[in-house]
Amino acid sequence: MNYNSLFEQIKKKKSFLCVGLDTDIEKIPEHLKKEEDPIFAFNKEIVDATQEYAISYKPNIAFYESMGTDGWISLEKTVKYIKENYPEIFVIADAKRGDIGNTSRMYAKAFLETLNFDSITVAPYMGEDSVSPFLEYNNKWVILLALTSNKGAFDLQFFKSEEENKHLYEKVLEKSQDWGDQNNMMYVVGATKAEMLTNIREIVPNHFLLVPGVGAQGGSLEEVAKYGMNKHCGLIVNSSRGIIYASKGEDFAEAAKNEAKKLKDNMEKLLIEYKVL
Amino acid sequence: MNYNSLFEQIKKKKSFLCVGLDTDIEKIPEHLKKEEDPIFAFNKEIVDATQEYAISYKPNIAFYESMGTDGWISLEKTVKYIKENYPEIFVIADAKRGDIGNTSRMYAKAFLETLNFDSITVAPYMGEDSVSPFLEYNNKWVILLALTSNKGAFDLQFFKSEEENKHLYEKVLEKSQDWGDQNNMMYVVGATKAEMLTNIREIVPNHFLLVPGVGAQGGSLEEVAKYGMNKHCGLIVNSSRGIIYASKGEDFAEAAKNEAKKLKDNMEKLLIEYKVL
Repeated sequence: MNYNSLFEQIKKKKSFLCVGLDTDIEKIPEHLKKEEDPIFAFNKEIVDATQEYAISYKPNIAFYESMGTDGWISLEKTVKYIKENYPEIFVIADAKRGDIGNTSRMYAKAFLETLNFDSITVAPYMGEDSVSPFLEYNNKWVILLALTSNKGAFDLQFFKSEEENKHLYEKVLEKSQDWGDQNNMMYVVGATKAEMLTNIREIVPNHFLLVPGVGAQGGSLEEVAKYGMNKHCGLIVNSSRGIIYASKGEDFAEAAKNEAKKLKDNMEKLLIEYKVL
Repeated sequence: MNYNSLFEQIKKKKSFLCVGLDTDIEKIPEHLKKEEDPIFAFNKEIVDATQEYAISYKPNIAFYESMGTDGWISLEKTVKYIKENYPEIFVIADAKRGDIGNTSRMYAKAFLETLNFDSITVAPYMGEDSVSPFLEYNNKWVILLALTSNKGAFDLQFFKSEEENKHLYEKVLEKSQDWGDQNNMMYVVGATKAEMLTNIREIVPNHFLLVPGVGAQGGSLEEVAKYGMNKHCGLIVNSSRGIIYASKGEDFAEAAKNEAKKLKDNMEKLLIEYKVL
């Protein structure tokens, strides 16, 4: 998927919502547990119920790997189901991979070829040759960690060079401009640090940002839009637990749909307010 | 496995060799490709042939994931085979994971419970809560990226705070001492940067270091020992391609054994030279 197709989808759906598929066997409704593949059954219903309001899905790979081979099968089926039924949707492998070149190449093959995701989240610590193998695919994207939503973000991401007058997360934003551009790279910026978005937008005015942390983690959608939206929206805001676990009963898909619609309605207002629509 | 068991194994085998199982279907001998599970068949023969000289195996998870579900099955079988037949051996998931707390917890479950690895390599960028879930397991280990062996290491790991008078990789070494200690944490330090080991040993004198980069990547075993060995050895040196692809013929396991023995013989000399034995 390219930049324009993504923007077109945002305008068409009046939404920049990504639904995080952090699907946990301990948290899905009881009645699904008798299905042959409960994780896939859950994901399928969630996707069908919310796809009208979402431009993106983001399976969190850890949740599938925690179940071993069975989890990997559920993951394969989930991506295939989305791509076959909703080909316009942007599918993100939230994997946070990154290794020496020949190994990153294997991860790229795993997620961008074998599983056919549109994009993958990548950790920047190992530098250019750990990231560039993911950038060799046409119409696929790297989403590089810049400023994450968790408490631990303060441990290293704000490490500061006085001489360069920048923090590590700013260095990541700047340095990575040599590796890719707004057509194949996005950045993860946590919603819990919305006030930093003004500064981040000075460094990467045109890139899309993947913003987790709205909902369960406490970030504000309004603040994210205020400080981070650009003329092509430039935001993909993720909500996971707030949508997929809105109800634990048989009405879970309907409840997820309602939560997704609420977020979409707020997003539509913001897209109008900031003159994207 | 605890610190002492690991040290005992090093003394018994007179080796600190880790064999990296970067098993690539494109590179294994032709005759194995008719096996039901060629990747596992290859790993099994490599392990049987080299276990006399190796204290550790390190499957590189990317190589398995690139093959989808089949790869995950081969990985499960490989770890199970090693644990059942050679329970004294330290098995490392080279996975370089790290995410927000609830997600790192799932990766910990995947690798330290479901797959039953002894340890996992973890990327530090997201800070404490991305690392600590892996530290909650008794006798299991985090191996945190500090200074990696690749060219891209220079992009961010040498980012320097003048005020703190340290580079990012030094900050990682220092900060992470608050999260774990020498009994549940090791560090990745690339053999291609052996001269940095003197400085690293000032910060972490007692920790084990996992050292990749000897062999195909050009690092020197002698330099690693000279600058990095401590009185409990404190080193686990990995070789992957140099051992497992020593021959592409039917004699691949015998060739791997010979390469492992050569490294072990050099290691034995160094353990004596530096008075560990």
